[in-house]
Amino acid sequence: MSASTLKHNSYFDGQVQSIGFERHGRRATVGVIAPGEHHFGTEAPERMTILSGELSAKPEGGSWSHYPAGTAFEIAGRSGFDVRVLQPCAYLCEFL
Amino acid sequence: MSASTLKHNSYFDGQVQSIGFERHGRRATVGVIAPGEHHFGTEAPERMTILSGELSAKPEGGSWSHYPAGTAFEIAGRSGFDVRVLQPCAYLCEFL
Repeated sequence: MSASTLKHNSYFDGQVQSIGFERHGRRATVGVIAPGEHHFGTEAPERMTILSGELSAKPEGGSWSHYPAGTAFEIAGRSGFDVRVLQPCAYLCEFL
Repeated sequence: MSASTLKHNSYFDGQVQSIGFERHGRRATVGVIAPGEHHFGTEAPERMTILSGELSAKPEGGSWSHYPAGTAFEIAGRSGFDVRVLQPCAYLCEFL
């Protein structure tokens, strides 16, 4: 993906959508999660920063934590996490 | 648009893409601007918050200002602004 290429991603029948981009060779996405509960798998480690709204997340083998806008959490690579969202929640996902 | 409906928007031949959402009756989008210079028109007043990267913006009748990640600016309704981006820049646009 070149610096000028943006990529639209859609998951779970459009309930999670994001725009992928790359800067200085680092990949990231900004997206929105519609109300519901979903499981995300990770390949690379990720940092999820909540931009607008709030969500609860549970890493594999861990317990639920609540993340309001302005907070962030990191997830190990080759792992995954559950998210639970009551109102649409916007996030920045950085691949570490 | 219901609380569970996300909308993918694409402008300028895919060089600006965003995901629109609504929470508590307020509309917002998160998106990414690829390198280049673009003009955006506004209907409602907007607050643009820079999430990742940086951009320069010039409101109609105003002058250029620089906005790095973590900063924000507001644009009047029924107006517009130019943006100039050197590397992909992610933003949150809130309709006021």
